[in-house]
Amino acid sequence: MKDIPWVSIKRLPVNKVSGFIASPSSDLLSVEEPLEIRIVYGPEGIRTEKNISITMRTPGNDLELALGFLFTEGIISSHAAVKAIAHVPITCELQKENVVRVELTEGFMPNLSQSDRNFYTTSSCGVCGKGSIQSIRTVSAYTNLARQQQIRLSAGVFYSLPEQLRLAQSNFEATGGIHASALFTLEGELVLLCEDVGRHNALDKLIGTALGKNMLPLSAYILLLSGRASFELIQKAAMAGISIVAAIGAPSTLAVELANEFGITLLGFLKKDRFNIYSHQDQLLIPALHEN
Amino acid sequence: MKDIPWVSIKRLPVNKVSGFIASPSSDLLSVEEPLEIRIVYGPEGIRTEKNISITMRTPGNDLELALGFLFTEGIISSHAAVKAIAHVPITCELQKENVVRVELTEGFMPNLSQSDRNFYTTSSCGVCGKGSIQSIRTVSAYTNLARQQQIRLSAGVFYSLPEQLRLAQSNFEATGGIHASALFTLEGELVLLCEDVGRHNALDKLIGTALGKNMLPLSAYILLLSGRASFELIQKAAMAGISIVAAIGAPSTLAVELANEFGITLLGFLKKDRFNIYSHQDQLLIPALHEN
Repeated sequence: MKDIPWVSIKRLPVNKVSGFIASPSSDLLSVEEPLEIRIVYGPEGIRTEKNISITMRTPGNDLELALGFLFTEGIISSHAAVKAIAHVPITCELQKENVVRVELTEGFMPNLSQSDRNFYTTSSCGVCGKGSIQSIRTVSAYTNLARQQQIRLSAGVFYSLPEQLRLAQSNFEATGGIHASALFTLEGELVLLCEDVGRHNALDKLIGTALGKNMLPLSAYILLLSGRASFELIQKAAMAGISIVAAIGAPSTLAVELANEFGITLLGFLKKDRFNIYSHQDQLLIPALHEN
Repeated sequence: MKDIPWVSIKRLPVNKVSGFIASPSSDLLSVEEPLEIRIVYGPEGIRTEKNISITMRTPGNDLELALGFLFTEGIISSHAAVKAIAHVPITCELQKENVVRVELTEGFMPNLSQSDRNFYTTSSCGVCGKGSIQSIRTVSAYTNLARQQQIRLSAGVFYSLPEQLRLAQSNFEATGGIHASALFTLEGELVLLCEDVGRHNALDKLIGTALGKNMLPLSAYILLLSGRASFELIQKAAMAGISIVAAIGAPSTLAVELANEFGITLLGFLKKDRFNIYSHQDQLLIPALHEN
């Protein structure tokens, strides 16, 4: 294995299920954490500090990320506009380096008219993963639902899902360039499928459709994601009361933390005969897993 | 082919290159367009209209998308909060249905404290793809650069890039869950590589690194994207003066429109022996293409 910065990957426990046999193992996951970008600007004596953006990112090269973001969003037009750039401490028990402050030179006025993306946090600890998780708890009506119920599913239910998704996903077949979110019954029957170039949009379309049909909370369904499972997708699933999420791709660390916290069983790398379980395996009925 | 809503896919001309032979063809692409979500709320007589979000989405199920977004962001907590929901006309020559207005019931107060994502447009025609493209032109110093130069590249330069990326991408090898942006010289030599769970972050890290090294504009480099090419990624590439972008995945319609507009040669579905050209093929030296 090549030289990997350990700030950007993390080893987590996982149960690898192949057929109907499960074995405890561990897996390297890409770290996902919020990063807040702030700028300091204005003439000497009347400097202003402004939060420009919060993005979910993989730690590492944070200063370059902040610089690149300000440049590609048109807020600064050259490197000369930057006087200093550094992480600043956040008042958080976890002491994570999740805030970058970019101090602009005194004569330079940032172009904030094109600053389209604004992301405000209300929590005093909004910029650590823990704060992000807590802020969801306050707004969701269903976040404790998953823990109150006992679903027992066989591994076999999951193995047919990727092929069902593939057959139903007309747009992907045509363009090869679209994400899908699909809802299945606990028996593995496809109920809803939504597609979009943005994975968060595909899931919002799905949940919006279910909301319109009075199907919420979606605690008795399986959510299948065509790609990777990020924090944002698990957050949306939690808001809709979904307790079983299966992703065809890899999950991020924060997705697993959120799933753990909210009683969601999260599966990743789902194939036709195997998958990994990252959280709450107790909802799955896999004999070997419980015997070992 | 299954039943596909034509609002969500579009056929575009493409040159399919296999080895050193190119043939004009056409390709179905996923449509990408901005969608603005507005809410109307407050007691009778003093109703307020507020822009909540603009997201790049694939048209289709827009009302469900708006509903799902408001719900998963915690702005509304039930379907009963919605009195009416519909597309509203935008003052744009293209007459696209890119704005959805959600009228909330009189007694209901939306929870806007958790409304983290705010996206403001300044242009009067910001919510059509054309408006999005125009707004970039105003802020980028390099957007006319690509057209002024003549780069002539052989198809062979591209074929080694995916394998070079794979070998260099340590995090992806470990986790299977991370995006990459890589910069290559016109001879195909890897110069920079950045990874992130967010594809836009990977590219911002790359451009930020290049900015710090005084490498901008990046007009004499090839940008390789590990996944799909969306509008946002081509926008960032354009801001940095990049004129050749190769994606291992599929491009969206708006990515191709932007590439066409800004003189960027956009390649998609890049494999070890073939790729598609979606825009400005004139920068590539592929004999068969120019002979036919």
